[in-house]
Amino acid sequence: MITLEEKFAQSFIGEEAKQLAPRMEKAYRTLVSATGEGSDFLGWFDLPVNCDKEEISRIKAAAERIKRNSDAVIVIGIGGSYLGARAGVDFIKTPYYNQLAKDTPQVYFLGNSFSGGELAAVLELCREKRVAVNVISKSGTTTEPAVAFRAVRDFMQSKYTEEELKERIFVTTDAHRGALLSFARAKGYETFVVPDNVGGRFSVFTAVGLLPLAICGCDIDELIRGTIDERERFLAQGISHPACRYALLRNYFLETGKSCELFVSYDPFLRSYGEWWKQLFGESEGKQNKGVYPTSAVFSTDLHSLGQYVQQGQRILFETVVTEETPEGGYTVKKAAEDLDGLNYLEGASMAQINRKAFTGTSVAHSDGGVPVLEIRFEQKDERSFGELCWFFFAACGVSAYMLGVNPFDQPGVEAYKKNMFALLGKPGYEDLRASIEERIK
Amino acid sequence: MITLEEKFAQSFIGEEAKQLAPRMEKAYRTLVSATGEGSDFLGWFDLPVNCDKEEISRIKAAAERIKRNSDAVIVIGIGGSYLGARAGVDFIKTPYYNQLAKDTPQVYFLGNSFSGGELAAVLELCREKRVAVNVISKSGTTTEPAVAFRAVRDFMQSKYTEEELKERIFVTTDAHRGALLSFARAKGYETFVVPDNVGGRFSVFTAVGLLPLAICGCDIDELIRGTIDERERFLAQGISHPACRYALLRNYFLETGKSCELFVSYDPFLRSYGEWWKQLFGESEGKQNKGVYPTSAVFSTDLHSLGQYVQQGQRILFETVVTEETPEGGYTVKKAAEDLDGLNYLEGASMAQINRKAFTGTSVAHSDGGVPVLEIRFEQKDERSFGELCWFFFAACGVSAYMLGVNPFDQPGVEAYKKNMFALLGKPGYEDLRASIEERIK
Repeated sequence: MITLEEKFAQSFIGEEAKQLAPRMEKAYRTLVSATGEGSDFLGWFDLPVNCDKEEISRIKAAAERIKRNSDAVIVIGIGGSYLGARAGVDFIKTPYYNQLAKDTPQVYFLGNSFSGGELAAVLELCREKRVAVNVISKSGTTTEPAVAFRAVRDFMQSKYTEEELKERIFVTTDAHRGALLSFARAKGYETFVVPDNVGGRFSVFTAVGLLPLAICGCDIDELIRGTIDERERFLAQGISHPACRYALLRNYFLETGKSCELFVSYDPFLRSYGEWWKQLFGESEGKQNKGVYPTSAVFSTDLHSLGQYVQQGQRILFETVVTEETPEGGYTVKKAAEDLDGLNYLEGASMAQINRKAFTGTSVAHSDGGVPVLEIRFEQKDERSFGELCWFFFAACGVSAYMLGVNPFDQPGVEAYKKNMFALLGKPGYEDLRASIEERIK
Repeated sequence: MITLEEKFAQSFIGEEAKQLAPRMEKAYRTLVSATGEGSDFLGWFDLPVNCDKEEISRIKAAAERIKRNSDAVIVIGIGGSYLGARAGVDFIKTPYYNQLAKDTPQVYFLGNSFSGGELAAVLELCREKRVAVNVISKSGTTTEPAVAFRAVRDFMQSKYTEEELKERIFVTTDAHRGALLSFARAKGYETFVVPDNVGGRFSVFTAVGLLPLAICGCDIDELIRGTIDERERFLAQGISHPACRYALLRNYFLETGKSCELFVSYDPFLRSYGEWWKQLFGESEGKQNKGVYPTSAVFSTDLHSLGQYVQQGQRILFETVVTEETPEGGYTVKKAAEDLDGLNYLEGASMAQINRKAFTGTSVAHSDGGVPVLEIRFEQKDERSFGELCWFFFAACGVSAYMLGVNPFDQPGVEAYKKNMFALLGKPGYEDLRASIEERIK
């Protein structure tokens, strides 16, 4: 169960915040009744209870096969096609997963940049290993993953026969059409579905996220169980659900001049969760010259880099801290014979206890310094909480974007760079744009 | 040599930008004449030509010994005590360094959080390895590294005798005083110096950064050579040096409502460089309720997460893109018999070439969308360029902060969370603060 604590934001929440309640209520209704803009992309909402059981079974079976026949899996995808899985592995397992994995394959994420260095490094690391590939792309023509997949196909063909590749290449793509689907069918590769009504940033509980997570040994039934539970609470509690309050407060803070939200965790295992969260909110809300600018940090780590700014810089920030109710204790400080480092006063304290005091002390300091701090709590770093937390943010994001007055589920601005890039790369059909850009930049 | 290209920002730079020139010139003079606030922390400025040759030799010798006797080195430090070295390893070598390293030890960074999970993971990974430790702390009493060092000492004592540890524990700390220095002397560990006049975020070219970088096989003479060259150009070119122009423009953008700077690289090898850069600018400028809010991203990766926001969100951003003049080409796209993915038009293009087009196309799109884009170019991802680029940003940061009217070299706000944390943890001497905080938060 996800909860919201606003103790360290209270002094920033004026009476006027109440005036946002009707807008929040309307946004909630718009979302749950699927009557708002973009509601043909609301597939994520009922996915917890509607998911394709047959496909879930195939995902599990494929994951088991890959676990048996592979030491490493290369996951090719960009944006929503890798951020969720990567966040999940770090959150549920550890950011050191690849070095610690014993009974499950290592996982490498490619196709999310044009970095030749990264591609070469991963292929080098996989050279002597038994490798599987999961390529994830709705269309199959997004340039970054498509280029990577060409390179990875060459690599795989140098290691395996076409027959063997049928057991090693798994394609997650459109159910009915597209370049990647045609390719997979021609080659006889098993396919999984990127549903039409679930956008990339909401896709972690489709095959997009579930297959890589299952390969890494995550219990996907528990993941789904978490989404089911949070969805039920969201429907049962209505506008009293904390996702609604969170949506209201972030709009309120925005209106009071807090243009930027700093997503914070006190745990490096959630660093990549912050990256996932930034896509969710940034891509959903950053339109029509609106939206909170989403940023992220890990504390106390970044208190020694961004901390000064948060404490005393421009007062344009609010903080959303995600914390764990019942973290593992970790190392406990022991008494030293000579107390040279002055830590003996911490004798018997676990790192989790110290970390909690760091959170409280920091939240008091930041709030005293002019930065409201919201706390969102999950139970523990496991599959269930990951499911709950992600679904919580999905719902909060829908309500928040509707409150803001934008379509939460499109991303029209992402096309702009692609069009220019296609033109500059000489893609057929973009000749005029190419000429006009080249004229402008010469 | 570092250069600045402002082609994609030109339409945002009005006549009024010229009015900032006198302030920039004054800031430049204040910096080079060491007459401004905080000028007792200007040690980094002449470090390139003043560095302690004897210590540099000892750093190289220690690195050689560690390379011979260790498979892994644990670097304990927070903030400026690890960000520079980590950025350097990723930039000069690769973010996959630990998995690819053959003739040099793996490097693990600890003591930068209270994560028991991270501590346990690293110790687990080091259990069967030959391990060295470099603990970095000016005072020796900063809580995060001090706690980690207690744990790591236990770990090392379980593997080695006290005599062996003299060859395995290296201490980088104050030259004359402090808990860590006393400890090192008592134990007979070799020590290196955190100079009094170089703040943490400017310390990567002291032993703080140089020892870990040398252990990882970086050529520290070349690093220093880069800083020497950039410093010479900064002194020779005066206010025509691009660091001055960059400082002027970021102040200008800030004054025109661009509150946030997005540091961008088109190369995941610079992701952690962005973290280093955020500390440098955030901690130097974020005071007196002033300063550009520093954020970072890697493109094209994050064009599929933050890209929508950059293109169409609140118009409060400007972008500073750091690019490589002569990147390695990487994989070259080959013609496919069937052009299912539609990439045949890219036949013969290297990833570096595609990446450059992505940069240009994106910069045109973002600038058209209302985001000025500055480009800062370095030669290539090697030691020399790393030295040049870091020193460029040091100088730019000094000029920029003086233009803003703040002391670039202090960080008074970092104490706030520490004080509260100490109080809550029951540190002797903080009893009153503890009582008052506990009263407030109950």
